[in-house]
Amino acid sequence: MSPAPPTPAYRRLSVEERRAQLLDAALSLFAHRAPEEVSLDDVAEAAGVSRPLVYRYFPGGKQQLYEAALRSAAEELRHCFDEPHEGPLLPRLARALDRYLAFVDGHGAGFTALLRGGSVAETSRTTAIVDGVRRAAAEHILSHLRATDPGPRLRMTVRMWITAVEAASLIWLDEGKQPPAGELRDWLVEQFTAVMGVTAARDEQTAALVRRVLASEDG
Amino acid sequence: MSPAPPTPAYRRLSVEERRAQLLDAALSLFAHRAPEEVSLDDVAEAAGVSRPLVYRYFPGGKQQLYEAALRSAAEELRHCFDEPHEGPLLPRLARALDRYLAFVDGHGAGFTALLRGGSVAETSRTTAIVDGVRRAAAEHILSHLRATDPGPRLRMTVRMWITAVEAASLIWLDEGKQPPAGELRDWLVEQFTAVMGVTAARDEQTAALVRRVLASEDG
Repeated sequence: MSPAPPTPAYRRLSVEERRAQLLDAALSLFAHRAPEEVSLDDVAEAAGVSRPLVYRYFPGGKQQLYEAALRSAAEELRHCFDEPHEGPLLPRLARALDRYLAFVDGHGAGFTALLRGGSVAETSRTTAIVDGVRRAAAEHILSHLRATDPGPRLRMTVRMWITAVEAASLIWLDEGKQPPAGELRDWLVEQFTAVMGVTAARDEQTAALVRRVLASEDG
Repeated sequence: MSPAPPTPAYRRLSVEERRAQLLDAALSLFAHRAPEEVSLDDVAEAAGVSRPLVYRYFPGGKQQLYEAALRSAAEELRHCFDEPHEGPLLPRLARALDRYLAFVDGHGAGFTALLRGGSVAETSRTTAIVDGVRRAAAEHILSHLRATDPGPRLRMTVRMWITAVEAASLIWLDEGKQPPAGELRDWLVEQFTAVMGVTAARDEQTAALVRRVLASEDG
């Protein structure tokens, strides 16, 4: 009998690879269970490694692992917003939303637990991570709109829309991912133009941006 | 020398009155500080009573007091939605928003801490209290729209708008309550009609409601 192939537990990984492997395992568990229901044992088992090894990488235990997983998810979320500053604006927004919804789709329960808060693992540090992603999303949108010095009404509109998108994605997960992602994406883009239109009637800066967006969509 | 007048500490209050007095004191402290920065000593001092008395009413300590204050604030918030089912719909929404913004104005930091989560006092129970208010708000709106069997698109639209209103009120507090409450209220009502209009183009139930709302505004 030839020897069994080495299991993932004994494969030699660099420190960074091992860390990434453990975070991946943790994220996939958080995708299906609330953080407080995931133990270090579960993570060790999912990654095919020993519990002491998980502790060696995350000596702070569950809370440290959860925060690291959250940071890694936040990083991934930020990449959804990477979109070249080229071409008509609304298709750019639609592409970013496609990536965002794919992320929500892939991280399900973990995403919900993160945004809903109220988990035992929630702290002001985890809230700051989530708020950082929200701020990044708002800055991306304002930069695509080429709003270099956005006034309060424009900023509020963008931030409200981002919160509404978050709410939509939580409800979407609750409702078995209905309507289909493509339809939800179009609907969210339409809401963006609608609320921008409402603000444009009250704010000259927003009105000028909306005119430019409309012109760019024609081009 | 005549004896000093009795301080509030020694005034005879019924159990219910005393409890309400302590919750009022706690809420006014939460309005200016994050829950984790409020001690039972502070509440005792604000209410003019002894610390043991606060403990007698809230033997579970700070967490129990915080949850009771939250429940009392949630109850007050729910009253904002009490609006007779009479007359044109948008003015009803505007009146409910006026009461809501007055509540946000009065409870400032406590409201922020509550909705932002991330406080050490945040638990799944406190989250459930906040979610209960959100659900109540959605049900009120749907009942005013006379949507007895609201479909997923209509419900999602209403819930997204409610989340956007929450976001707006947090930003409003952050920005020194600008724009003025009356302008913010009108803007939020306009956003409501705009997002309902967007959904109406995708959903026959919402379209029928929007037509009825428009008709009622004419009446």
